[in-house]
Amino acid sequence: MLHVAICGGSGYTGGELIRLLSNHPFVKITAVTSEKSAGKVVSDLFPHLTNYSDLTYEPLDKKDLLPKADLFFMALPHAESQEAVDFFFRHGKKVIDLSADYRLKTPTVYEEWYSTPHRFRSTLKKAVYGLPELYRKKIAKASLVANPGCYPTGAILGLYPALKHKLIATDSIIIDSVSGTTGAGRKADMAFSYCEVNEGFKAYSVGTHRHTPEIEQELSAINNKNIKVDFTPHLAPYDRGILTTAYAKMKSNADTKKVFALYKKAYANEPFIRVLGEGRFPNVKNVRGTNLCDIGLTVNQRTGTLIIVTAIDNLIKGASGQAVHNMNIMMGFKEITALETIALFP
Amino acid sequence: MLHVAICGGSGYTGGELIRLLSNHPFVKITAVTSEKSAGKVVSDLFPHLTNYSDLTYEPLDKKDLLPKADLFFMALPHAESQEAVDFFFRHGKKVIDLSADYRLKTPTVYEEWYSTPHRFRSTLKKAVYGLPELYRKKIAKASLVANPGCYPTGAILGLYPALKHKLIATDSIIIDSVSGTTGAGRKADMAFSYCEVNEGFKAYSVGTHRHTPEIEQELSAINNKNIKVDFTPHLAPYDRGILTTAYAKMKSNADTKKVFALYKKAYANEPFIRVLGEGRFPNVKNVRGTNLCDIGLTVNQRTGTLIIVTAIDNLIKGASGQAVHNMNIMMGFKEITALETIALFP
Amino acid sequence: MLHVAICGGSGYTGGELIRLLSNHPFVKITAVTSEKSAGKVVSDLFPHLTNYSDLTYEPLDKKDLLPKADLFFMALPHAESQEAVDFFFRHGKKVIDLSADYRLKTPTVYEEWYSTPHRFRSTLKKAVYGLPELYRKKIAKASLVANPGCYPTGAILGLYPALKHKLIATDSIIIDSVSGTTGAGRKADMAFSYCEVNEGFKAYSVGTHRHTPEIEQELSAINNKNIKVDFTPHLAPYDRGILTTAYAKMKSNADTKKVFALYKKAYANEPFIRVLGEGRFPNVKNVRGTNLCDIGLTVNQRTGTLIIVTAIDNLIKGASGQAVHNMNIMMGFKEITALETIALFP
Amino acid sequence: MLHVAICGGSGYTGGELIRLLSNHPFVKITAVTSEKSAGKVVSDLFPHLTNYSDLTYEPLDKKDLLPKADLFFMALPHAESQEAVDFFFRHGKKVIDLSADYRLKTPTVYEEWYSTPHRFRSTLKKAVYGLPELYRKKIAKASLVANPGCYPTGAILGLYPALKHKLIATDSIIIDSVSGTTGAGRKADMAFSYCEVNEGFKAYSVGTHRHTPEIEQELSAINNKNIKVDFTPHLAPYDRGILTTAYAKMKSNADTKKVFALYKKAYANEPFIRVLGEGRFPNVKNVRGTNLCDIGLTVNQRTGTLIIVTAIDNLIKGASGQAVHNMNIMMGFKEITALETIALFP
Repeated sequence: MLHVAICGGSGYTGGELIRLLSNHPFVKITAVTSEKSAGKVVSDLFPHLTNYSDLTYEPLDKKDLLPKADLFFMALPHAESQEAVDFFFRHGKKVIDLSADYRLKTPTVYEEWYSTPHRFRSTLKKAVYGLPELYRKKIAKASLVANPGCYPTGAILGLYPALKHKLIATDSIIIDSVSGTTGAGRKADMAFSYCEVNEGFKAYSVGTHRHTPEIEQELSAINNKNIKVDFTPHLAPYDRGILTTAYAKMKSNADTKKVFALYKKAYANEPFIRVLGEGRFPNVKNVRGTNLCDIGLTVNQRTGTLIIVTAIDNLIKGASGQAVHNMNIMMGFKEITALETIALFP
Repeated sequence: MLHVAICGGSGYTGGELIRLLSNHPFVKITAVTSEKSAGKVVSDLFPHLTNYSDLTYEPLDKKDLLPKADLFFMALPHAESQEAVDFFFRHGKKVIDLSADYRLKTPTVYEEWYSTPHRFRSTLKKAVYGLPELYRKKIAKASLVANPGCYPTGAILGLYPALKHKLIATDSIIIDSVSGTTGAGRKADMAFSYCEVNEGFKAYSVGTHRHTPEIEQELSAINNKNIKVDFTPHLAPYDRGILTTAYAKMKSNADTKKVFALYKKAYANEPFIRVLGEGRFPNVKNVRGTNLCDIGLTVNQRTGTLIIVTAIDNLIKGASGQAVHNMNIMMGFKEITALETIALFP
Repeated sequence: MLHVAICGGSGYTGGELIRLLSNHPFVKITAVTSEKSAGKVVSDLFPHLTNYSDLTYEPLDKKDLLPKADLFFMALPHAESQEAVDFFFRHGKKVIDLSADYRLKTPTVYEEWYSTPHRFRSTLKKAVYGLPELYRKKIAKASLVANPGCYPTGAILGLYPALKHKLIATDSIIIDSVSGTTGAGRKADMAFSYCEVNEGFKAYSVGTHRHTPEIEQELSAINNKNIKVDFTPHLAPYDRGILTTAYAKMKSNADTKKVFALYKKAYANEPFIRVLGEGRFPNVKNVRGTNLCDIGLTVNQRTGTLIIVTAIDNLIKGASGQAVHNMNIMMGFKEITALETIALFP
Repeated sequence: MLHVAICGGSGYTGGELIRLLSNHPFVKITAVTSEKSAGKVVSDLFPHLTNYSDLTYEPLDKKDLLPKADLFFMALPHAESQEAVDFFFRHGKKVIDLSADYRLKTPTVYEEWYSTPHRFRSTLKKAVYGLPELYRKKIAKASLVANPGCYPTGAILGLYPALKHKLIATDSIIIDSVSGTTGAGRKADMAFSYCEVNEGFKAYSVGTHRHTPEIEQELSAINNKNIKVDFTPHLAPYDRGILTTAYAKMKSNADTKKVFALYKKAYANEPFIRVLGEGRFPNVKNVRGTNLCDIGLTVNQRTGTLIIVTAIDNLIKGASGQAVHNMNIMMGFKEITALETIALFP
């Protein structure tokens, strides 16, 4: 049994880690932390976990935690994660960081977008970006995995085959994304109270969202070419799921059929990607509760634009499920272990 | 008192016409038609109108209806509207057609996108596109007004000042729109049943939606230049409202401040347009139940892209409210009559 | 023009008061208060009111406010309202208090359920319970009106004719109510954040809700008989509306038809009550945005139980609309002024 | 491997049976029927099952199906189920009927409430009511199990210990239930379209719902005493879950603590029942996607009323999950097999 600890276990991603790992045959959760809820039991915060977890929250005391686990899931807010990740990593533990702190390879880019210094640059160099479909081999050998952001996961998986095959003009990429409200985290904030969000729909952080440099870093890496994108997130009145509609001008004259073939091939062996048939487009409802990424696409012959639509569950493929996937790869477990759930529909 | 008839009064736009016109001091609804519900009273179909309307649905018998009204609102499905519109128009009545039948000026374009012939081409030539902000003067003199589609209303109003001032490259326009489910109309259709739509989000008619040529016609007319756009509609789990996020590459080097100034000026005298302040973006929730169009925008300096976001209530500014606005202009009533409602929030 | 001030104008009921009174032809809002938002303009907090209100929030300084208005709407939290109400009342102003502070006639009952002393007992004696259908004449002469709670409004209106006509056993009353989430107010509270409420449904304050003594006081007053009830509120995932299902054993052998006739007669002249036809039951959706109370009922012959269902918009008939109705009565305005809105459906 | 067939596999309960049984280690689905969708594959109707089921719908040809399976799940509309159930049962197959056809033991009661004759009375006598918590031993020996209705499941489980221990007056039971919209089934019906249900809340079938005699039959059986109840179902704008609030007058003077103790004891060994702690009440959100029934309760000392609140997922504990539970019992599998899922929260 692998002993794991969850640092920051009171939010939605923490709750999902507990839920997913409770079903994992080779894993035992030995500690879960929360500063505010220390002393409470998990089911006080998550009544749905009544009878499924008997853990008590403890404060994040690094020295105390060190001997308790072999692998640490870090689900802390960005900036707060930096130091603890570094600590566990330096003490020889495996670490999967769900915060943004170890995703951006260039510290100055991190500092510009997150308005806080990165104080652990040598550790940062060891971090592997944990998108299994692109970096499976590196992840298998890594001790520190930076789990991707929710928006980047859907955006990168949607654009990867098109960029790899140089189908599109790299200066024409528009990424328009819509997230359910779990994306805002679990907190007391009037702007995310029920009646403010319900029956509403809006764009936010237009042109300024922090996931932009992460998307750009990974798209740029595909063919080693500097790429800038327009990324606009929107907030929608449902719980889970990100739908991303990406646009780019075709350089190639490949039609929809050909592009489909390339996508099908690119993801042929991926357990969590479903490239849908021609004329079919994803719905977040069909991936809810799963680690899947559904992909649909079309080439608009009238305008020469490739339009790709992807759907993920932001809490699972966009966070905790991908983290468990990364753990499975790092530990040599079968990749789909504890992630085989079929979507809960409707 | 102006006598008006509503042809097709059992759907959501019909219901909204009854509601809005019931509050109009200079209008009396004299007839409302429905083939399926003939003989029923309005409140059988719309219990919220109990005590507010004593009308009984009648079948659409053109000769019978002719003497009953001076102005006809046509809220029929496309193709079904063609002949009745022509009939009332030829008999000297004023007509406001909420269907798509008289919006596209080129019959072959209509026939291509709607897969049905246009049999009343001479009447079509007389139709004025009923977007008051662009065609107020023509509407004032018109006898036949083609009320704009819901998506085109939000898209055109968002792009009009940018195109008029030649700020953007006309071959780079992406229009990404999200509609509440009233956009699908009132009908028995499993795909729009509660549990299929709720907690879901999807794109549909990707690259093929029938509002595309309407948007292109009107954008092209602004500077008499042929424009093609990528338009992707999405279906969201809320009742009312369309949010449109439009993208185009800047040709001008105007910054956000300058572009805002141009937008504020362009719409300075418009009673139903609110250009929001810098850094503010619209939410469909803030226009629900109103004839307003809220507009926010930014110039992304990193990518040279102008991003414009607009919000309307699809049933009001996108349909019945705009129809009443057109009627007010055609009849010389004060434009805001019966349309002064403040949004119902939350 | 009547000058009115709104004390506590940053919550949902405050926002609704501003919206409703902005449409009132005989009223001018001269001040609106908020401690937290003093200095901000109304549209900073309520973007939907952009262009409709140019008021700036000010702190509640009683002496400052005194000369500014003839009538004060108090939309403060309970306990906070007591003193300010007393102050304005003693200085000869008309006051409509939307808090619970002046609803319960027996101070000890107030103190038991609200866990706070009532320090203004002589003023309390002057307060009239502002349910126009029961107390219209008293309200017309009152200077201080205690605006009813949202749940009591729907419950009392549903049971009033049955009790008045002694149709039901007074020891058998069960009141099961369901409220939309605006009932929780506008605040930062994780328990009312979108993802906690959405797709959920629960009972709360089972057997202990503070509206219980208010309901009991008013039901007891109908025939001067001491009545206790079981009242269970539930929280539902929608914005507006309370549906109340009330049960009581029939003492009379009147059937559904006879009971309907009594209800129709009892409310025949009420502008805001719609007793629906036999076999029809209300839906909160049909009263949303209105000051209406819809009522349906049936006598279950199998069990001898009268089942009454009522629907109101909790923010309007259950709060701000009823307050405006009370103002209209107190000032001798036509009762429906500014309250004629038809429900926004869907 | 047990071979099972699903008759009526295109609705929500059919979809859930496919989903749940796909995860069952000892079961293979060999056939799934649908008249309308014969020839289509499962993922045409349920895109979320893409990659998880390769079955093709076939028409319900009884002779054809007979050799294909050892156990038949019947998820057909009531009345349609009667004959097919009888056929498979008479041919020695195990049958679990999710329709209402074999639940009511008295054919005349069935005929009165369902307005259709029961033509298979001798088979009806063999049917066991499939509520495992009450009839586990009979189910283990049964060949024909009538799977309980969704509302009865939550109502009976909530009242069972109170009745068994004679805590409550049997002529005072009120059952007030609220269902998510999946309860209406998967169909094209305007009344259940998104915009009709969303932001609405209503009671329906007041005093006349067909689950009433089923509830009464089972409550009456507990102490062999004839019981009539008032049962009022409501429709709520969420997908899954039934919350039942039941009221009855206490005969005993047991307080909340004592009643809790009796409930805890009654359900101590039940794998799918969670009696929550004092002061805790269920939320449908905490059982979504599970076969659990959560129970909270209180004795209102002011009125002498016991108030019990239960929550289930109507598609799982209220239908397909309970059917799988019954299968597990009938076949001697471990009861929780394929039903161990933790709720998907949020």
